[in-house]
Amino acid sequence: MGTSNHVDLETYTKQVAEQAKAASRQMASLPGGTKIAWLRASAQCLRDHTSDILAANKQDIAAAPGYGLSDAQIDRLRLTPERIEGIASALEEVASLRDPIGSVIDSTVRPNGLRIDKVSCPLGVVFFVYESRPNVTADAAAICAKAGNAVILRGGKEAIHSSQAIVAQLALAAKEHGVPEHAVQLVDTTDRAAVGHFLKLSQLIDVAIPRGGEGLIRRVVAEATMPVIKHFNGNCHVYVHADADLSMAEQILINSKCQRMGVCNACESLLVHKDVAAEFLPSVAKALAANDVEIRGCEQTCQILSQAVPATEEDFGAEFLGPIISCKVVDSVEQAIDHINRYGSGHTEAIITTSLEPARLFAEGADSSAVMINASTRFNDGGEFGLGAEIGISTDKFHARGPCGIEELTTYKYIVQGQGQVRG
Amino acid sequence: MGTSNHVDLETYTKQVAEQAKAASRQMASLPGGTKIAWLRASAQCLRDHTSDILAANKQDIAAAPGYGLSDAQIDRLRLTPERIEGIASALEEVASLRDPIGSVIDSTVRPNGLRIDKVSCPLGVVFFVYESRPNVTADAAAICAKAGNAVILRGGKEAIHSSQAIVAQLALAAKEHGVPEHAVQLVDTTDRAAVGHFLKLSQLIDVAIPRGGEGLIRRVVAEATMPVIKHFNGNCHVYVHADADLSMAEQILINSKCQRMGVCNACESLLVHKDVAAEFLPSVAKALAANDVEIRGCEQTCQILSQAVPATEEDFGAEFLGPIISCKVVDSVEQAIDHINRYGSGHTEAIITTSLEPARLFAEGADSSAVMINASTRFNDGGEFGLGAEIGISTDKFHARGPCGIEELTTYKYIVQGQGQVRG
Repeated sequence: MGTSNHVDLETYTKQVAEQAKAASRQMASLPGGTKIAWLRASAQCLRDHTSDILAANKQDIAAAPGYGLSDAQIDRLRLTPERIEGIASALEEVASLRDPIGSVIDSTVRPNGLRIDKVSCPLGVVFFVYESRPNVTADAAAICAKAGNAVILRGGKEAIHSSQAIVAQLALAAKEHGVPEHAVQLVDTTDRAAVGHFLKLSQLIDVAIPRGGEGLIRRVVAEATMPVIKHFNGNCHVYVHADADLSMAEQILINSKCQRMGVCNACESLLVHKDVAAEFLPSVAKALAANDVEIRGCEQTCQILSQAVPATEEDFGAEFLGPIISCKVVDSVEQAIDHINRYGSGHTEAIITTSLEPARLFAEGADSSAVMINASTRFNDGGEFGLGAEIGISTDKFHARGPCGIEELTTYKYIVQGQGQVRG
Repeated sequence: MGTSNHVDLETYTKQVAEQAKAASRQMASLPGGTKIAWLRASAQCLRDHTSDILAANKQDIAAAPGYGLSDAQIDRLRLTPERIEGIASALEEVASLRDPIGSVIDSTVRPNGLRIDKVSCPLGVVFFVYESRPNVTADAAAICAKAGNAVILRGGKEAIHSSQAIVAQLALAAKEHGVPEHAVQLVDTTDRAAVGHFLKLSQLIDVAIPRGGEGLIRRVVAEATMPVIKHFNGNCHVYVHADADLSMAEQILINSKCQRMGVCNACESLLVHKDVAAEFLPSVAKALAANDVEIRGCEQTCQILSQAVPATEEDFGAEFLGPIISCKVVDSVEQAIDHINRYGSGHTEAIITTSLEPARLFAEGADSSAVMINASTRFNDGGEFGLGAEIGISTDKFHARGPCGIEELTTYKYIVQGQGQVRG
């Protein structure tokens, strides 16, 4: 970490990116055992320096009200010995994941004797832009490096001291284990203009990954000259088909909406088949009311539920991230699919049904990263999918879709072995 | 095909893209058998309407000198009954490829009983921008549609009549077989501004694929708001290691450079280990001279070869696409790798060696889409890799790298099957 005053941000960001590119070349051929030893040693360093990290975190907590952070946000920012232990164990978990580099993904021997191997390899340099929580600093560094990449971390100013203290421990362990010094770099200026400079460096940075509010993500997408892994938001739907087990439907809807309201895989919109609307809606409305959730409904919904507020066009497109849900009665699974593809964000959709055909149509037709059949939308998550740690969830269709773990931070190359073959 | 006068290009391009998006929804669930029947019927329609297509092509050939096309370019533009038969058989070959949609790529059952299937599905809408040759129109339409996508074809003005005649046959067969009318659309204006309008429509178009000169590709990349599959150019290297079989090395170098000089996987630069430079260079220089290839060499090369011209820094970064090759003597495989990663374009590199360790280091270290061990660079090609037809070659690391066939025109979604699971 250099000085935090950079007269010339352009020079500084270019230097950081060039260092990352050089480190990425070394990371690509670093033995898997070295990465494991480093991540485990980093975990131990975090534990051994708990008091240093807590002291740094105290500075962030003290500054937090000045940044206008809410109590809930300050709580997420706060570190405790238990939370530091959690960060350390997460590093050990990433260490124990299967090394994703060097696997032969596909292979063929051609009639002329050429062996064509498609082999996994790192993406190169990852630029990760994120907000507040300090544990994300350690998680992102670990997952990017485990996939053989160099990473440039640009955390929020709110957690800068905590992040610096954490990265200092990773650097200490890196030096011990021969991991390149610049494999993990934390941007040491909180000047927002630095992000714009990094986003211009497509020759040096292979992918940008923003994680945080929609404003941050839209800014990164607008300015990036390299590919971006992202989701803007999650307007997830639960569709209750005519033949659904209505008690299961209610449990799944309530879990999808209420288990944690501020997350991208929470349900924001309920679609109900007309044949069961009159039976299902009054019951689910009670359960939603018990969770203080307001219902904004279509005309038919409002006819059934006197407490529902008429929904606007914007409500059907909204990610509320809080105690509001939109609701629409539909005529068929096809109409549910059309509604989702029109208003949805391509994140997660669930169907509750007992029949094969609507399940098949919905799974095929809903153009989203994940489709749940008789399960909560909240399961669209790297850990829940068994992928291990995730760096984010993608609603794009290019490169990676859904939860992005270490596999999604890799690419491939073709390695072709011959015995002198030339083309005729 | 509407009129070719569009007062309002923005309205026209948006309409085409919206039609494509709607068609892509239908294409995603079109049975594989329908796609096969349509492609075969299209091939037959092309054969049955050979004279119409030849007449249309005659118009393009007549207009070609006005566009300043060279004789070689006019020859590539020209259709004959044999070439039309070739286009028809290519459609049949694409028809017979394995359907890439709906495969379970990966699958796991979680401890809570959730089945997580990662299933291949189409990308959606492909915007393909290309130059001159009319056969590309049919190939691209077939490969995109076989992968379940809708495609917007923007061919060069030089081949517009031929392309229209070909697409008319595909449309005829589409109608017969229930393939959506707008699955394949040929942009019917040659106004260059139309491309810019399409490139703004990231909500409707999932990927842009430019194929042609570097100028076209740079323009598309600069203006595109959606992902792009592309390579700017191919500065491919052949590296001859100290222990190489020099006769094999010469055959591979000459094939890589001379078998077809104007293509992206042709060799543009020769790297030779210092220990064999004095023996190898005079012999290979003779063979290059026999092919009228000029050598632009480093200082050591020029000391060995009196006929070599001193190379500039630009020469080492150049894609000559013609009878020039750059040449550098290096001290080690590591130096060869560094040179390639500095001056190369990430396309194709070959090493000639008899030893395992330099082969391994080179394959791992050269950051390119394909690395050839003892084989010609000319093999980096979808057909040669056994992938079937290709829409292009990517030097990017994101989504697809190397030859892009139908698999690379797909993405995936997660389909999760439960029995009422909620998240605790």
